[in-house]
Amino acid sequence: MTNKKGWKTVLYETVFEADTRAGKLFDLTLLVLILLSTLTVMIETMPEIPKVFGHYFYKLEWFFTIVFTVEYVLRIIAARKKRRYIFSFLGIIDFLSILPAYIGIFISGAQVFLVIRIVRLIRVFRILKLAQFIGAGNTLRTALLASRHKISVFLLTVIMIVIVSGTTMYLIEGAEHGFTSIPRSIYWAIVTLTTVGYGDIAPETFLGQTIASLIMILGYGILAVPTGIVSAEMIQMKSHDKLSTQVCPACMRDGHDSDAVYCKYCSSKLN
Amino acid sequence: MTNKKGWKTVLYETVFEADTRAGKLFDLTLLVLILLSTLTVMIETMPEIPKVFGHYFYKLEWFFTIVFTVEYVLRIIAARKKRRYIFSFLGIIDFLSILPAYIGIFISGAQVFLVIRIVRLIRVFRILKLAQFIGAGNTLRTALLASRHKISVFLLTVIMIVIVSGTTMYLIEGAEHGFTSIPRSIYWAIVTLTTVGYGDIAPETFLGQTIASLIMILGYGILAVPTGIVSAEMIQMKSHDKLSTQVCPACMRDGHDSDAVYCKYCSSKLN
Amino acid sequence: MTNKKGWKTVLYETVFEADTRAGKLFDLTLLVLILLSTLTVMIETMPEIPKVFGHYFYKLEWFFTIVFTVEYVLRIIAARKKRRYIFSFLGIIDFLSILPAYIGIFISGAQVFLVIRIVRLIRVFRILKLAQFIGAGNTLRTALLASRHKISVFLLTVIMIVIVSGTTMYLIEGAEHGFTSIPRSIYWAIVTLTTVGYGDIAPETFLGQTIASLIMILGYGILAVPTGIVSAEMIQMKSHDKLSTQVCPACMRDGHDSDAVYCKYCSSKLN
Amino acid sequence: MTNKKGWKTVLYETVFEADTRAGKLFDLTLLVLILLSTLTVMIETMPEIPKVFGHYFYKLEWFFTIVFTVEYVLRIIAARKKRRYIFSFLGIIDFLSILPAYIGIFISGAQVFLVIRIVRLIRVFRILKLAQFIGAGNTLRTALLASRHKISVFLLTVIMIVIVSGTTMYLIEGAEHGFTSIPRSIYWAIVTLTTVGYGDIAPETFLGQTIASLIMILGYGILAVPTGIVSAEMIQMKSHDKLSTQVCPACMRDGHDSDAVYCKYCSSKLN
Repeated sequence: MTNKKGWKTVLYETVFEADTRAGKLFDLTLLVLILLSTLTVMIETMPEIPKVFGHYFYKLEWFFTIVFTVEYVLRIIAARKKRRYIFSFLGIIDFLSILPAYIGIFISGAQVFLVIRIVRLIRVFRILKLAQFIGAGNTLRTALLASRHKISVFLLTVIMIVIVSGTTMYLIEGAEHGFTSIPRSIYWAIVTLTTVGYGDIAPETFLGQTIASLIMILGYGILAVPTGIVSAEMIQMKSHDKLSTQVCPACMRDGHDSDAVYCKYCSSKLN
Repeated sequence: MTNKKGWKTVLYETVFEADTRAGKLFDLTLLVLILLSTLTVMIETMPEIPKVFGHYFYKLEWFFTIVFTVEYVLRIIAARKKRRYIFSFLGIIDFLSILPAYIGIFISGAQVFLVIRIVRLIRVFRILKLAQFIGAGNTLRTALLASRHKISVFLLTVIMIVIVSGTTMYLIEGAEHGFTSIPRSIYWAIVTLTTVGYGDIAPETFLGQTIASLIMILGYGILAVPTGIVSAEMIQMKSHDKLSTQVCPACMRDGHDSDAVYCKYCSSKLN
Repeated sequence: MTNKKGWKTVLYETVFEADTRAGKLFDLTLLVLILLSTLTVMIETMPEIPKVFGHYFYKLEWFFTIVFTVEYVLRIIAARKKRRYIFSFLGIIDFLSILPAYIGIFISGAQVFLVIRIVRLIRVFRILKLAQFIGAGNTLRTALLASRHKISVFLLTVIMIVIVSGTTMYLIEGAEHGFTSIPRSIYWAIVTLTTVGYGDIAPETFLGQTIASLIMILGYGILAVPTGIVSAEMIQMKSHDKLSTQVCPACMRDGHDSDAVYCKYCSSKLN
Repeated sequence: MTNKKGWKTVLYETVFEADTRAGKLFDLTLLVLILLSTLTVMIETMPEIPKVFGHYFYKLEWFFTIVFTVEYVLRIIAARKKRRYIFSFLGIIDFLSILPAYIGIFISGAQVFLVIRIVRLIRVFRILKLAQFIGAGNTLRTALLASRHKISVFLLTVIMIVIVSGTTMYLIEGAEHGFTSIPRSIYWAIVTLTTVGYGDIAPETFLGQTIASLIMILGYGILAVPTGIVSAEMIQMKSHDKLSTQVCPACMRDGHDSDAVYCKYCSSKLN
């Protein structure tokens, strides 16, 4: 690394990375500001807080809005591929967390959107250089990605079950027992199948309770399916750890078992 | 494939398969119509929708009923083994989704049965030729089929538990606390054991709450059983995928990956 | 098998086993009677049933009580070790299902205890000679038995958590929010930790809701523990299938891997 | 073991260990006293108990408070590293269980803190020398410790999800439907995501119910994540138990069971 860097490089390293001293400080300050702004927004909405403090909360929220606006502008200036940052997941989050405050400039309360910036917290492990947590996060992401096809099929099946059973319950129970429309009955079916069970809508006829019982047992049982999918994936990833990181010197392919002596693809000796 | 095909073959390929251009178009159109008809039926039941639109919804539903009737007739004409299609799962679904509309021709609302046609959505992966999703679906089906005996024994045990504990609670709590009959108490036991917990019926005596606590902890704990069954099955299926049953002809050792070309122990060619 | 058997042997084989024609018939009749008596007891309690039928239900229940009394006497006569049958799990069930009817001879309703006889249903697979289901049942029982120590430690931990958190919530929320006593608060903690969530008691203060949130997330997370225990046990049982059933001809010990050539205990050749 | 031991050693062995006769007796007496004091505190709060007994309960609780105070003093005297005991987890528990009684000496009811001493129950297995339960406890602790990084990442993700979805629901449903503040809405989001579902707060608008449905399905699905983590860890621990890391000195192959004496491939002695 050379000592002389352009201000753009310095800005980039400060704003987007956490390897330099300045970058680390920037990120830590940002995390603290995000936590404080989230707390401010939350506390302001509590009815227990006397109204006389509302004035201070309002000022605090505008302070955070302006700080995050400066941060957003700095990120755009620093980004090498500006378009890519702006339309990235975190770029959109950064934008959405300040925009409503300006749009609703005359309507108090739009600063509540500062809260969505909380998703930046996920970077806490990266900033604190906690390699184990980053590794754990990657393992989870990989396991979920690897099982995305199975989970999609499972979700589609669940959607069909709740549509059919919601409609059935609408016909059986009807509006007088709270099943006022098919969408509301489907909402009830989701509440039941996922074993949440608010009880705001509950079947009252004998037939309705019988079908509800079947849906509950189904929901209780098929919970085993996503769990089985993710468990199997995680166990396989654990056994992948037993793979060596050796690359065949002849054909350059990897993925050899740790007890392999010869390349399984080209029979060259591994060393 | 020959160019000259009888109209029956063309009809069959269009209506039942998704390999020809016409077949794909037919299936996609059908999927869109099913989604639209489901949405129509759903929205019509919402009390938020002004009654003046009822007229249009009624017409739309009859349109879908007629379209699906034509489809049903076409399928019967095209099917090589008509009886088999008619009594197949999807054949019965197709029939049930249109029949009530004709039976209840003078009663508005019977078109609601169009919704059960939503189960045809499961074909979406096949039509879009998404091999990975079809494979994922097959894996799930195989894992569930392989564990059907264990799941049956589990379900029978659950049924006995809810019958005995439902009856016990009927005796303890009685009608004044909502346990008005044994079937209703069994419904409560299912709501509790599956951890749904509506709260429409809840024990109020000390003894009743104690027994309810035991049922909850039991239900919380035995959820591990179906999950364990399905997980074990999926993990076994995964490990079956990975290893070939090949034995090295030179050193006679096995345990080679299914993509191995050479023995990883002695570099002989596997055949 | 000899043709001449004493009446006691015949009675034993008929009443306790299901291998002879008579034994199978006896068991099947019993199962049907149990199902019918359970249904009778259930239906009688339903408020939808007109009171005029009460007379018939009463007679039916006494009929079942007398039939099961005869069965109980026959079992005692037939049992070789009478004491062992009487104090066995099923023996106690058989006794409890008829006794209350005689004790409460003047009180209608004691026949409700006929329902506990439903646990005899578990024999349905044995009677129908469904080897796969019996095997599945044994697998489940073995997996649960093998993990009983881990599950006990888990349950003791759960009990301590609900006692401590129940008492905490009693102090925080107090009687005015439904936490009227410590046992009732512990009941609430169980309802919450097991994710049942009736909502008959719910925290209303800010601190109470915060602690409740922690208990919920804990209950949601530690569900992974029993599931992990049972999954691991089941997977190990599956891999035990890969063990050969070979017994070493020299030292007579088993448990050899299916790829073993020599006994791992005494180095004799396995054949 | 020598016969002559200083009184401090004897006290230490009695109070902190359970290997001597006196130590075992001390621990068992303590366990019984803890159980009795917990029961006393619990029962006193029940409204079913006539007020005339309050006098006796008050005396009983002071008796337990004094006994536990004596125990606490004895532990401090006996402890070799006093500071370490006082600030250990159990030391703080011991302190907290008696302190409030003295602080609130004029306020009846502070003895309720005796209940937190229940966590000492975890020692029951150690006192009864139940090796299998101690082993099971250690296995569970190790599995949870090994997966602590993955579980932390999972929990952080869950926290971000409930903050964002709670705030969203506050904006959509508002105070008139029970979502009176952001913290209360986050409480609702936790109740929903963990599938507890009290129903004390429930969405009523169409949009709110739609988003609630998404949160439920998410909560239902991601339960698979901690379960998968713990399952994978436990399975790995099981397979680690089984295989030794020994390599046969003659044929250099590994994968021998930990109880193997001879190589299963070539019959050489393992060392």
